Amino acid sequence: MSRNVTQKLIAAHLVTGEMRPGGEIGLRIDQALIQDATGTMVMLELEALGLDRVRTETAVQYVDHNLLQTDERNMADHVFLRSACRRFGIWHSRAGNGVSHPTHMEHFGVPGKTLAGSDSHTCAAGSLGMLAIGVGGLEVAMAMAGEPLFVTMPEVWGVRLTGELPPWVSAKDVILEMLRRHGVRGGVNRAIEYHGPGLATLTAMDRHVIANMGAELGATTTVFPSDGQVLEFLSAQGRAADHTEILADPGAGYDVRDEIDLSTLEPLIARPSSPGNVVPVREAAGEPVHQVVVGSSANPGLRDFAVVAAILRGRQVHPQVSLDVNPTSRQILADLAKTGAITDLIESGARIHQTGCLGCIGMGQAPAVGRNSLRTFPRNFPGRSGTHDDSVWLCSPETGAVAALTGEITDPRDLGPGPPEVRRPRAVSAGAALFERPLPPEQAEEVALSKAPSIGSLPELDPLPDALTLPVVLKVGDDVSTDEILPAGARALPYRSNVAALADFAFTQLDPDYPERARAAGPHAVVAGRNYGQGSSREHAVIVPRYLGLRVVVAKSFARIHWQNLANFGVLALEFADESDYDAIGGELRFEGLREAVEKGTELTVNGMVLRHRLSPRQRAMVLAGGWIPLVLRRG
Amino acid sequence: MSRNVTQKLIAAHLVTGEMRPGGEIGLRIDQALIQDATGTMVMLELEALGLDRVRTETAVQYVDHNLLQTDERNMADHVFLRSACRRFGIWHSRAGNGVSHPTHMEHFGVPGKTLAGSDSHTCAAGSLGMLAIGVGGLEVAMAMAGEPLFVTMPEVWGVRLTGELPPWVSAKDVILEMLRRHGVRGGVNRAIEYHGPGLATLTAMDRHVIANMGAELGATTTVFPSDGQVLEFLSAQGRAADHTEILADPGAGYDVRDEIDLSTLEPLIARPSSPGNVVPVREAAGEPVHQVVVGSSANPGLRDFAVVAAILRGRQVHPQVSLDVNPTSRQILADLAKTGAITDLIESGARIHQTGCLGCIGMGQAPAVGRNSLRTFPRNFPGRSGTHDDSVWLCSPETGAVAALTGEITDPRDLGPGPPEVRRPRAVSAGAALFERPLPPEQAEEVALSKAPSIGSLPELDPLPDALTLPVVLKVGDDVSTDEILPAGARALPYRSNVAALADFAFTQLDPDYPERARAAGPHAVVAGRNYGQGSSREHAVIVPRYLGLRVVVAKSFARIHWQNLANFGVLALEFADESDYDAIGGELRFEGLREAVEKGTELTVNGMVLRHRLSPRQRAMVLAGGWIPLVLRRG
Repeated sequence: MSRNVTQKLIAAHLVTGEMRPGGEIGLRIDQALIQDATGTMVMLELEALGLDRVRTETAVQYVDHNLLQTDERNMADHVFLRSACRRFGIWHSRAGNGVSHPTHMEHFGVPGKTLAGSDSHTCAAGSLGMLAIGVGGLEVAMAMAGEPLFVTMPEVWGVRLTGELPPWVSAKDVILEMLRRHGVRGGVNRAIEYHGPGLATLTAMDRHVIANMGAELGATTTVFPSDGQVLEFLSAQGRAADHTEILADPGAGYDVRDEIDLSTLEPLIARPSSPGNVVPVREAAGEPVHQVVVGSSANPGLRDFAVVAAILRGRQVHPQVSLDVNPTSRQILADLAKTGAITDLIESGARIHQTGCLGCIGMGQAPAVGRNSLRTFPRNFPGRSGTHDDSVWLCSPETGAVAALTGEITDPRDLGPGPPEVRRPRAVSAGAALFERPLPPEQAEEVALSKAPSIGSLPELDPLPDALTLPVVLKVGDDVSTDEILPAGARALPYRSNVAALADFAFTQLDPDYPERARAAGPHAVVAGRNYGQGSSREHAVIVPRYLGLRVVVAKSFARIHWQNLANFGVLALEFADESDYDAIGGELRFEGLREAVEKGTELTVNGMVLRHRLSPRQRAMVLAGGWIPLVLRRG
Repeated sequence: MSRNVTQKLIAAHLVTGEMRPGGEIGLRIDQALIQDATGTMVMLELEALGLDRVRTETAVQYVDHNLLQTDERNMADHVFLRSACRRFGIWHSRAGNGVSHPTHMEHFGVPGKTLAGSDSHTCAAGSLGMLAIGVGGLEVAMAMAGEPLFVTMPEVWGVRLTGELPPWVSAKDVILEMLRRHGVRGGVNRAIEYHGPGLATLTAMDRHVIANMGAELGATTTVFPSDGQVLEFLSAQGRAADHTEILADPGAGYDVRDEIDLSTLEPLIARPSSPGNVVPVREAAGEPVHQVVVGSSANPGLRDFAVVAAILRGRQVHPQVSLDVNPTSRQILADLAKTGAITDLIESGARIHQTGCLGCIGMGQAPAVGRNSLRTFPRNFPGRSGTHDDSVWLCSPETGAVAALTGEITDPRDLGPGPPEVRRPRAVSAGAALFERPLPPEQAEEVALSKAPSIGSLPELDPLPDALTLPVVLKVGDDVSTDEILPAGARALPYRSNVAALADFAFTQLDPDYPERARAAGPHAVVAGRNYGQGSSREHAVIVPRYLGLRVVVAKSFARIHWQNLANFGVLALEFADESDYDAIGGELRFEGLREAVEKGTELTVNGMVLRHRLSPRQRAMVLAGGWIPLVLRRG
């Protein structure tokens, strides 16, 4: 049977289930990735599970989110994470090594392997022919403990690329075109697999750009073949031996199909405040710009910075514009220094920031209210920048660099025939990264976790009661992101290890009084529209409302990772059988015989409305137990 | 008559008063320096004064403090400051250009000129043979408006340097030796003037290190001669034409004398939590280190970073240590890039941060509680790092770099015969800085100030009443710093343009309930020990308590800048005639006939205690009027 790349990767790791779209499958996980904002919770989960040592081939903890250190909590977390790495046999990537996704690709990515990561952009590793899936922290913790990763078998969406990108158009415009065509829900329950002759001109790092922002389409993952471009990337990293060719079989089919002729693309930009609001740059030309930020896992490659440096070389950033440059890995920063690109950036007026996620997760770099900020980032959800009423646009490095020069949104093609030549290093600085290896088991078991008072523990999770009367404490619309459920950013992120302290931030972007009402109500429900929980993988967006009493979410539909997180922490996710019931729902929801309804059926009737769940038997058990951890602990 | 350099500089700018130590003198000001944390208030003051255009030869606004931008306020301030620069004819140094002191020295410093700056480390420009004085923002605003700067004529403290620094010992150890000998009050009412043969081997930037931390001795300023080293520095900047030789006359005398044989110095370190707690590094050797931070105006020179790079070259930072490198100017960052030093730093494991003050003012980089952080900074007051119960040490770049390698405090001389050779650029990157020139007057007058809602106005200041009954709302000990009166740091700094919002932070480092008690009390007094108000120049440390009702501070003694700030904003600063009254004072202070007592005398009897003020007639008038601004506005 002819198989596409996605099917090959899944088949090679299938532990349970059948490869039929919509069914639950369990996958053997080879590698695990965690970052510090979700990682402290993962470490607390490993502690709660009583794990002795991780069982994946490779597990890496990155410190890339909480880098501002505005108070003592960040460094307390860093000390805790390092101690946990030493205890559990995990690689430690210290602050300054870089953003997890490009850094992992550079140093640990291996074609053909599976990767589970507690970050929604984990899918970026699909650029190397990996099956890389962003999930909640608890699922990564379980994968580290040797459990399979359970996901809904996706449809495979074959996107055929033809042609070659014109001057001033780059990989970011490819994924913006996908978002322009299909919007932020277009990839739900799908794995996007790129194929076709257009691939030949896209480097592995270009593919990273495209794979990364597959998350913005809601896709389960994105997959590229492992071909000559991947070999070239791995060879440059001194890891040619890690290469395996993985191509779709001749005649392989796809569940869904699309095609992009690269030569027809033009510079694109996502307007505020959704990655789905994509228009041609020329349609927004002339808008004044106050900030341009270059960096993040959405444009992480050396080329992405070098092209900005080449455009700026010998010119000066407009005096109205703050041009912020966030190098994405220690290796890339070293290469920018060696090639002189960093000097071009410095002398043109750029601010060179430390290596890390920074403004992409609202960790600093907040723009002024209503002033346009152009960013090469993956997301521009409202308020994610740290600014209420922000005006954040998403674009390519080329479009950003040209706007930094002109002080207004400008079609980069107006600058002339094509971007100037980019400086490339003779050899990439692969040796610049500094990782701390896992300790040998006999040393690791001697290590004690270093927990400062600011680091809490997991809350107790009680089983699902059989009868519940739940006031609807909050009713929200479509496409509510995890940023709105539980913000990241400089105010909230330092509390990521402390559920009780985080509770004051829950839903406050949408309704400042939610924490108070939820506390007063105790057990309660939230009602939502479509694609509830889109965006980041943070399980805090479930744990914290659950801590405040959330037991049921009723929505028109759920984003994949968040839906799984709800089950993991014992919150029942229900969908309307009839979406028109959304308008009427409110007041109190009275559930009777709830345990039996969850265990044996998929439908409930509540207040005269039919509500459905899509839980697998495995997920039903965890919801009934109050969550996955109590389920595991009860089983011993 | 033979004159020392300090006397020459004062004589050349004397507008009022006599050059007799202790008397008030008025000085013509040639240059003004403001930074963003104090500058927004300065701009509001210029607005309140109705100024049309600054009258100093040069006025420069630096954006170096509020660079993290954790919410929209920072960029709103930046936009406001740029609009005010354009309105009032001020040079604008954008974020990323660098820390004010080294950047000013590189691009604007001119021997023989006076400089008034709204930053306590303005005195660093004494390295170029300038008379540079850090004062409150309002005094800088007045200097910008063409008024003289009024200061108490200092004693001149001649410090004769002989010999040459041994290997591993650098300029920072010279000023730490001064602090070891004389403590944080040793320089009060003095100008420190360095002279003697030991000067020959100290570069202008070495002298900057020493002059900068004269602030930590409480000195009015620090002065170096303008000699061949200064010419060499200015020539490298392409500004040889700005050089004038200014040397002490043969036989010039000093009011006070001291001598340091440089060849006898060893690596020194200030223990937590005062710059005065200096001991030899070897006495602290073996203490575990979790963080090393290199940068700040106390060690701003290319050499200070290059020596760290040279020590680290080919080695790796200890995995327990976060080595944070804060380049101090765009020029220096460019030079570090061009010489390859930045690559040595990156590859050794350093985190390269954006150009600016950062951790030095508690803007990020907060250490974990109780974990030792070694910093090349000027100050380690408790909590200034952003961490309660911090453990911050001050040292040279050499001592910091070696600790970063070993993970513990280490006498750098243990590393071998001397630090490796430092890489120097063929020509410094003086052209890398990007300043926006003052607009021509006809364009400037068209500019409107851009004030976001987060930018407040100055509070109304009422005249001093004749009778007052003031509860003592707070009683504090010796050496209370402005960091303790009104914190900087990432939490408070974003509110620097908003007095009402800042009120919640006043004195909270010492007593979390002060704001509440002060609000309840209304008009009130604070009692303090010696050297009250040491540290930074921030006038917010007066304006904010005044806004909360502070009318009188009774102290054993006051730090210079803060004492003047109190008068500027109409708070009466009184000293005990008999310091032993400090123990008994409390309850309520009943003042009668207060206006006449201030106007005509220097003594008051209150609750049976004799209290004195040292106000000049000029200062008396402003205290009676409620502050300098109401005084000026009343005069029209």
